[in-house]
Amino acid sequence: MPSIDPARLLGDLRRLAEFGRYKTGVHRPTYSKEDMEARRWLVERMTEAGLNASIDGIGTVLGRSASPGPCLLIGSHLETQPYAGWLDGAMGVIYGLEVARAFRESPECRNLAIDVGAWADEEGHYGSMLGSRSFCGVLSEAEIDAAGNKMSGQKLRDALAEAGLSGRKRERLEAGRYLGYVEAHVEQGDLLDSSGLRLGIVTGIVGIYGYRFTALGQQNHAGTTRMATRKDAGVALMRLWHAIDQRFPAVAGPHSVWTTGRITLDPGATSVIPGKAEMQFQFRDIARERLAIMDEALLALVAEANARGPCRIEAEVIARTEPHAMDAALQEALERAAQARAPRMLVRMQSGAGHDAQIFAPHLPAGMLFVPSIAGISHHYAEDTREDDIVLGCQVLADAAASVLQARSA
Amino acid sequence: MPSIDPARLLGDLRRLAEFGRYKTGVHRPTYSKEDMEARRWLVERMTEAGLNASIDGIGTVLGRSASPGPCLLIGSHLETQPYAGWLDGAMGVIYGLEVARAFRESPECRNLAIDVGAWADEEGHYGSMLGSRSFCGVLSEAEIDAAGNKMSGQKLRDALAEAGLSGRKRERLEAGRYLGYVEAHVEQGDLLDSSGLRLGIVTGIVGIYGYRFTALGQQNHAGTTRMATRKDAGVALMRLWHAIDQRFPAVAGPHSVWTTGRITLDPGATSVIPGKAEMQFQFRDIARERLAIMDEALLALVAEANARGPCRIEAEVIARTEPHAMDAALQEALERAAQARAPRMLVRMQSGAGHDAQIFAPHLPAGMLFVPSIAGISHHYAEDTREDDIVLGCQVLADAAASVLQARSA
Repeated sequence: MPSIDPARLLGDLRRLAEFGRYKTGVHRPTYSKEDMEARRWLVERMTEAGLNASIDGIGTVLGRSASPGPCLLIGSHLETQPYAGWLDGAMGVIYGLEVARAFRESPECRNLAIDVGAWADEEGHYGSMLGSRSFCGVLSEAEIDAAGNKMSGQKLRDALAEAGLSGRKRERLEAGRYLGYVEAHVEQGDLLDSSGLRLGIVTGIVGIYGYRFTALGQQNHAGTTRMATRKDAGVALMRLWHAIDQRFPAVAGPHSVWTTGRITLDPGATSVIPGKAEMQFQFRDIARERLAIMDEALLALVAEANARGPCRIEAEVIARTEPHAMDAALQEALERAAQARAPRMLVRMQSGAGHDAQIFAPHLPAGMLFVPSIAGISHHYAEDTREDDIVLGCQVLADAAASVLQARSA
Repeated sequence: MPSIDPARLLGDLRRLAEFGRYKTGVHRPTYSKEDMEARRWLVERMTEAGLNASIDGIGTVLGRSASPGPCLLIGSHLETQPYAGWLDGAMGVIYGLEVARAFRESPECRNLAIDVGAWADEEGHYGSMLGSRSFCGVLSEAEIDAAGNKMSGQKLRDALAEAGLSGRKRERLEAGRYLGYVEAHVEQGDLLDSSGLRLGIVTGIVGIYGYRFTALGQQNHAGTTRMATRKDAGVALMRLWHAIDQRFPAVAGPHSVWTTGRITLDPGATSVIPGKAEMQFQFRDIARERLAIMDEALLALVAEANARGPCRIEAEVIARTEPHAMDAALQEALERAAQARAPRMLVRMQSGAGHDAQIFAPHLPAGMLFVPSIAGISHHYAEDTREDDIVLGCQVLADAAASVLQARSA
């Protein structure tokens, strides 16, 4: 069996966290100076590990194995959310690098191949999973032309030019090369941590249905406009939000989640009745049928609100990703490896967050492995995972990868 | 009786609307270039009308009459809300100017005195009714030191310096000089317009109780955090807002109004459970006892929310002005004048908006006269009033002023 090197693994993770360090976490937005330094550093480390590595035209770092045997693709992403954690994404990439190194050092794995990918912009600073979508052939030049930074508005083309990536070829998934894609990640929730478990075998990635509600009322003076004649767009959205809060527990599944992340009243002044209001709402579930039921219930609540008036509420779909099941054989291999290293410390679970693995799932058998997030903290610089869990996850990934590739090469 | 000159009145109002014209309205924030040009223009017009006029150290334009007889103070404000109407404030100031001119031209009023004031920053770009409070002696140097622009953050001292007002004396209310203060204003609501009435005699100005609610929860990932363990600060405020929406109709008076003008979720991202949320809420009523009842009901709802949890909501008072009754004799004089010029076209009514008259009310007998706002539109460039209503209001104000002053001088 391949043996990973805990010190080398943790050392690389700590080194990577220096690029854009912020308090105990990392601020490394896609294509920032720190992000590009991290990508170039990764190319060096991959090259030292014997991989043929480069950065492609969308910023993805791909390291290819020269081994002749069957090949698995392992990866995740390097950039972070603003002022976020040191392991989100980075861990899955360095796991891939460490598994590749462990295979190279293992007599029985030396001829098996591990390619490693760090897919650009999984965190969506400029788009939605640009790197993995580019690699899988579902990112058009027109979409790249149109994309811009969600905070600064900088055009994606300009960001790529500043990062020195203009004109580079975009790598594409090579048909027939891979037996599958495996991604390890921090859980980002507290299921493992609160249960005292150490490994999560992901059964599937939830679908996300996102909406923008816009209420149109009549802006007016908050002192001189009688209650009876008001058309308060803020109140209209509050009532819809409350109706969702009341209704959704009855229509949702046991693992469904729903969230209002943003609401703005226009003009947003203390003494002005809002003439317009906007709200962003989303829900997630692993079952496509459940998503359809929730969508239907939601639109019925909007219709009820519009029947009541006096404001008109428009509902617009702003995100729709369908759920993606992980490959059964990869789940099986990951579970066997986990049972061998940490008996009874694992659970099969869904991923409530989106990951590059969902982009690969329609093209390759895809699998995911979770390690615990301490207290479930995610997208915050306080995100962390115990070192022994980090090490365990990487070894289990190496074991599972070896078993999958050995089964094919035997 | 004094006769106002409709063409001169409307001409001055149209000329004044050129300073900062925006579409059919005006954008003239306090101490802006356009605002200071308007103030200097007003000084010229006042001087032409025989008033001793100047701009004081807080930006107030005061024009003093040289007539020996008893004196009334008439005024309002010159600056506007952002991209707002041409009459809000400006009309009351030009009414004062026109009444002063009509008195000067009238044999029986020539010895009666009208002083005219354009009180700085009634609209609160830098503070709360700075000009009238300064004039009434309730604005300290320390408050001026601390004040800044609510949008840009520019210090009030710096704005005064840029406007060329540093070091100027601030005018003060001269004890014994005035029989009272009278302010005319557009209604800013639709009571007059929707009733087909032409004049409102203001009985009092509502009190405003304003609050900031801050909910503290736990920021987390909207996909991976189970519903049962969430502490969603946005949901906490929505539920409080809904409880107010349900409860207030039962505790409010027939003319009470209440408004949530602003709510922000932190961090305000689609896929993040808000860890913190803020909301600005206010209510208004003419009766102090009603305000107390509403305040008590509101704080009870906050206490109930906190008893339920899981988020903690803090309530902070951010505004508290008590209601101010208008002087009975001035109401009487205004009503008599209104009945004479437009029989049965008037109503006694409260002011739901704040005005400089509430600052004068504790120091002088204060009165207010409203003219209709077409469709009740206010704080918007579409604000307007029919010309015949503008002319009627000014003539009624002149008549009422003459009757008050003549009664004293007789």
